[in-house]
Amino acid sequence: MNLAARLLGRRRRLLTVLLSQSRPKHFSESRWASINQATSLSRNAMDSVSGSFASLSINPVAHINHPETSSPATWRDALDANASSPNYQLIKTLVFKPKTAKSAAPVPVVVIARDETETNSSALGKHLNLKELRLAAEDLLAEFFHLDKNSLSPLALNQSTFPKVITVLDSSIVSSSSVFAVHALSSNSTIFLSGKDIAAYVKHLESDDHKVQEVDFSTLATSSTVPTATKQAPKEDAKIEGAVQIAIGVKKEVDFPGWYTNVLIKADMLDYYSVSGCYILKPWSYSIWEEITQWFNAHIKELGVQNSYFPMFVSQKVLEREKDHIEGFSPEVAWVTRAGSSDLEEPIAIRPTSETAMYPYYAKWIKSHRDLPLKLNQWNSVVRWEFKNPQPFLRTREFLWQEGHTAFLTKTEADTEVRQILDLYRRVYEELLAVPVIPGVKSEKEKFAGGLYTTTVEGFIPTTGRGIQGATSHCLGQNFSRPEMFNIVVEDPNDPTGQGKTYVWQNSWGLSTRTIGVMVMIHGDNQGLVLPPRVANIQVIVVPCGITARTTDEQRATINNACEDLAKTLKKSGIRAQSDLREGYTPGYKFNDWEQKGVPLRLEIGPNDLTKQQTLAVRRDNGAKQPIGLSDIGANVSALLDTIQNDMFTRAKNNYDACLKVVTRWEDFVPQLDNKCAVVVPWCETEECEDAIKERSAKASEPQDERAPSAGAKSLCIPFDQARWGQIASGQRCIACERDARRFALFGRSY
Amino acid sequence: MNLAARLLGRRRRLLTVLLSQSRPKHFSESRWASINQATSLSRNAMDSVSGSFASLSINPVAHINHPETSSPATWRDALDANASSPNYQLIKTLVFKPKTAKSAAPVPVVVIARDETETNSSALGKHLNLKELRLAAEDLLAEFFHLDKNSLSPLALNQSTFPKVITVLDSSIVSSSSVFAVHALSSNSTIFLSGKDIAAYVKHLESDDHKVQEVDFSTLATSSTVPTATKQAPKEDAKIEGAVQIAIGVKKEVDFPGWYTNVLIKADMLDYYSVSGCYILKPWSYSIWEEITQWFNAHIKELGVQNSYFPMFVSQKVLEREKDHIEGFSPEVAWVTRAGSSDLEEPIAIRPTSETAMYPYYAKWIKSHRDLPLKLNQWNSVVRWEFKNPQPFLRTREFLWQEGHTAFLTKTEADTEVRQILDLYRRVYEELLAVPVIPGVKSEKEKFAGGLYTTTVEGFIPTTGRGIQGATSHCLGQNFSRPEMFNIVVEDPNDPTGQGKTYVWQNSWGLSTRTIGVMVMIHGDNQGLVLPPRVANIQVIVVPCGITARTTDEQRATINNACEDLAKTLKKSGIRAQSDLREGYTPGYKFNDWEQKGVPLRLEIGPNDLTKQQTLAVRRDNGAKQPIGLSDIGANVSALLDTIQNDMFTRAKNNYDACLKVVTRWEDFVPQLDNKCAVVVPWCETEECEDAIKERSAKASEPQDERAPSAGAKSLCIPFDQARWGQIASGQRCIACERDARRFALFGRSY
Repeated sequence: MNLAARLLGRRRRLLTVLLSQSRPKHFSESRWASINQATSLSRNAMDSVSGSFASLSINPVAHINHPETSSPATWRDALDANASSPNYQLIKTLVFKPKTAKSAAPVPVVVIARDETETNSSALGKHLNLKELRLAAEDLLAEFFHLDKNSLSPLALNQSTFPKVITVLDSSIVSSSSVFAVHALSSNSTIFLSGKDIAAYVKHLESDDHKVQEVDFSTLATSSTVPTATKQAPKEDAKIEGAVQIAIGVKKEVDFPGWYTNVLIKADMLDYYSVSGCYILKPWSYSIWEEITQWFNAHIKELGVQNSYFPMFVSQKVLEREKDHIEGFSPEVAWVTRAGSSDLEEPIAIRPTSETAMYPYYAKWIKSHRDLPLKLNQWNSVVRWEFKNPQPFLRTREFLWQEGHTAFLTKTEADTEVRQILDLYRRVYEELLAVPVIPGVKSEKEKFAGGLYTTTVEGFIPTTGRGIQGATSHCLGQNFSRPEMFNIVVEDPNDPTGQGKTYVWQNSWGLSTRTIGVMVMIHGDNQGLVLPPRVANIQVIVVPCGITARTTDEQRATINNACEDLAKTLKKSGIRAQSDLREGYTPGYKFNDWEQKGVPLRLEIGPNDLTKQQTLAVRRDNGAKQPIGLSDIGANVSALLDTIQNDMFTRAKNNYDACLKVVTRWEDFVPQLDNKCAVVVPWCETEECEDAIKERSAKASEPQDERAPSAGAKSLCIPFDQARWGQIASGQRCIACERDARRFALFGRSY
Repeated sequence: MNLAARLLGRRRRLLTVLLSQSRPKHFSESRWASINQATSLSRNAMDSVSGSFASLSINPVAHINHPETSSPATWRDALDANASSPNYQLIKTLVFKPKTAKSAAPVPVVVIARDETETNSSALGKHLNLKELRLAAEDLLAEFFHLDKNSLSPLALNQSTFPKVITVLDSSIVSSSSVFAVHALSSNSTIFLSGKDIAAYVKHLESDDHKVQEVDFSTLATSSTVPTATKQAPKEDAKIEGAVQIAIGVKKEVDFPGWYTNVLIKADMLDYYSVSGCYILKPWSYSIWEEITQWFNAHIKELGVQNSYFPMFVSQKVLEREKDHIEGFSPEVAWVTRAGSSDLEEPIAIRPTSETAMYPYYAKWIKSHRDLPLKLNQWNSVVRWEFKNPQPFLRTREFLWQEGHTAFLTKTEADTEVRQILDLYRRVYEELLAVPVIPGVKSEKEKFAGGLYTTTVEGFIPTTGRGIQGATSHCLGQNFSRPEMFNIVVEDPNDPTGQGKTYVWQNSWGLSTRTIGVMVMIHGDNQGLVLPPRVANIQVIVVPCGITARTTDEQRATINNACEDLAKTLKKSGIRAQSDLREGYTPGYKFNDWEQKGVPLRLEIGPNDLTKQQTLAVRRDNGAKQPIGLSDIGANVSALLDTIQNDMFTRAKNNYDACLKVVTRWEDFVPQLDNKCAVVVPWCETEECEDAIKERSAKASEPQDERAPSAGAKSLCIPFDQARWGQIASGQRCIACERDARRFALFGRSY
């Protein structure tokens, strides 16, 4: 439901998915033609490569096609999802450009290395005697190789390109017995080669005066960049000494998608899974979902909603009952067609949402107005088999959610509930996750397929300047209850003739694990995750400090016991506290570890603290430190956690507000979007105008993928709180057309 | 996991599933031959029927094949699962035998009626002037029609059989415009015919002196069985007056399977679903599952287990990694092969259990003994696409469960946890559900596929004399961690050389919604469900009584308010209480309603109770009534609920104990099974002997379906509490062979 808007059928683009038709393990020259199906350019290039392979007796371990990849992580994902993939290591192919005089043509440096090899550019520049190596821009790649960076591989080197570049080969590849994955000149195609074969391919291009440079990056790094002092006293055990680099490694403001996945992995929230587009929710993220479910369950039960469970399977006949509705979902429905070794008589769908699965039973169960209201909810997972750009929590093929489905006698009751539920969604975001949202109603274009109207809470990611739909609460009206649909009808008790019938008024509403992704994006920083105390599995971590080589066993025990006692005391006050008494890890390592995982508050206890009967409190959200006395510690820490929760929300709210710009002239619209803002505009609310705004605000260079952060702006919602933006003046025109403006609407680029 | 034993691959029989290859909507005579594929007998008979159809111009609406059916409920289930089924009503075909002199040959009465028509046999006998009509035994059906009762239909009447029987046709069929389902002489095949065509078929068999008797059963029932008084004062609204028959209608001790499904439906626990073998868990049953999950979650978290969520999909490669293991599951794995309109490159399985899906990540995450123990649990649903005999809660294609997967450094730790978890399972059954179980270890034959050993809690259904596996906790040993499997290995911190490696010790354990089915079977009675207070969604229902036509509005309000206040008071004491102030329903109707739903305690308040400041308490479990003063009502009701909980357990325990027979001579073994008991026997514990026992104890007449309640006895467990059965004497022989007995084992027929 909260993902529904982007699923609307009428706005779908054709999904073109390249799935390999054959998955041969061994190759003959004659088979290459049938295998290379990517672009005609890369097909010709691959024909040439395969010719070389044949003459060099290179026999790839495997060659597979897969969905397009845009990073090492998605590449790995795609390979792991394919049963034909052998065990492999990724090869990265980087192109650097040295600083040259403006008039001189640059000679690019092509580095072929294991993905995990650290290819320090300054050390490499020093080694090659080249100034200021920088990663080359895409246009240089296009110019030299006619490829984008995601398709680049050692195979891009050929008789034509090799002489124009300096080629550097990671020497650890040459000597390795591993199998390596290289792109077959396309990001959706991968060949698996031995290290020897990669070296053989590259070296067959050598001439007498132009050779491949083999470089041992491990010694290169040491010899050129590491201070001598460190070399003299090598760490015994990196983990123990805290010397391991456990920071996030990618800056939030520089590479947001890379930062996001790194935070999730390093905070132990999630792991990639062998089925593409699916992810493992580890306890650190699942516990947040548990907090949300408990809170939400308690509140909907107060409203008289009951939990239930409907099967995950839906028969084709039932699924396809409501045409508008199914049109929104059908391209991504997963079908079971076989059980054991038997083909099923009819394919059976896995639910993408449960309206059509549930409502035949509503028709059966609701026989009288006395059976109303019927309010059922279920916590389950649904499947929407998206083919592109999976993103943890935001866009996954299976996701966890709740879906509520209610039926009422009157529209008034349905309207009231839509807003009650929406307010619970707002509170989940604002009170639990400290994420500000703007409640409002969706435009006609963006409403739920088959419904009457959709309400939403809209979040915003300031780092990318994009809006994100938080959760949606739909009034379905009588669209599903009407006689030609599910025919959910009762005698109208208010009809004086006693003959009147009423088709019930229905709502549906859903909140998914997307909540967790939004929270991470809003609060996380370059140290990793930052958790709001309300949903943190561990709210307080107690770390013993000041233990040195001279500390006696007894002193150590005293400090450890004090930490343990402190954690116990806090637990008694209802605080989720834990002490970290792990042996063999430095305090520094532990600090990093828990910061990365976003624990809201760290309490340190060392010998001096014990003497003073205090602990040093360090906040994760702003790094502020303060000593707190151990007496009445429970109440003080509780209060501090509340402060953190409130401060996190206030900070996020201020950031959101700073990105909200009231714009009344079209000339200011796109500049504000480009300025990473959302705009509040007087709007006519017509679909035609929304289409036009989207087109006029799109950046020409960005791809128009509905699912990817969209380039054109769309209406995020028409906020309920109109008064906040003043009043639409009489005669005020729409921001984008000649019609009269009706209300202020929130527009923005979005996820 | 708790369902695992019956899934063991080596004990599988071949599943023969009749799925129709063609699903024509219209028929020509020439197509009958290809359609009728059941038995050769019914095929010949159907050839003859289709010949008649052709000559009578009867054109069936549809004809489908489906899994075998054994009752109207399973038939309906099978039809609803088939997309080719039109809207239909079931036809029942009953054969009665009148009382005749022993020497006389009986003339059977064949009744063809709508399934819901009440075909009162005494009224019918009176109408036909036949004495004591009784349902005919199976052998009579075989003799006359060569069919069992599940395959019988109007089509069994032909030129040969029609003259030998009296044929009664429900007149409401003849005049109906509905489409009716009739078996095509086989319980796995159904033809849809109009009422007119059914009548035409039957009537074309008529001769001058042998006619079909059309009977209007609705008037027949009224005219012959309903007392005149009732006719004179017809009820206005059956619902309001409480006159509707809402009792279960089938006796537990007579037709246990029919009773079971009736209780579930009428108690509002469950509804059938349009995909066969799947069921809707309505709030009344789902709330029991919520109670179980909350209790179990709290206890496993104390043990350091963390919740997580793994995707429902498993790649084929991963699923098939462990051969013994997958052999147990593969015949019933559901495969997704298509998404939207695209075929997937590789079919993807829906998890039947998650060992092989999770353990590759265990191998990745467990890098050091410091990462141990790893204890994860997930609450999810799994799919096992069984083709036969679905049974709500006990055997369903999708079911809810938890699956715990843990890894330890040592076998000792793993052993300890296996038993800790098993004891939690025992407590779920005994303390929450008031169902006694016997904890023990499974025999080698019955253990989990791929594991080291399996522990279990075994329940018993006295009504049927069959054991039922409650839940299982497995030690997997190092079978999944060894190098050729998932290679989950750490350096052994206890190895003095520092070189030693240890493959981790693993457990897995699961508890499913089967718990709910067992609870219903144990406690339910002929009034319906009986819920133990600990898991009842509503523990106490407060019903206003003594309101008559002469009651003033004010008196009515006083009584209603008192009920409402009482419910509120009880809620404050932590009791799940509710008042039933529904207008227009009599107290009698409400009593029935809540009894059927199994609410543990009813409190009645009438005018006299108010005067005396008391309420009449009526226990659901034993019907006992007692007045309770309204002062200190919370504590008194709490105590009474505890008493009910304890009494229910004690009663069930006594029933179980009474069915446990220690048997030391083979001659007593089968008679005790036939006596609906389980037997405790000295046993040698060899697989060979278990196979022999099974064979020797099977009833020849019962089908040998592993999934159906099995006819041969199997070992249920080797109880941990051996002392309860005395001591195995030195030199004591096995009950069934010449080997020495090792321990007492529990054997029985089982589900």
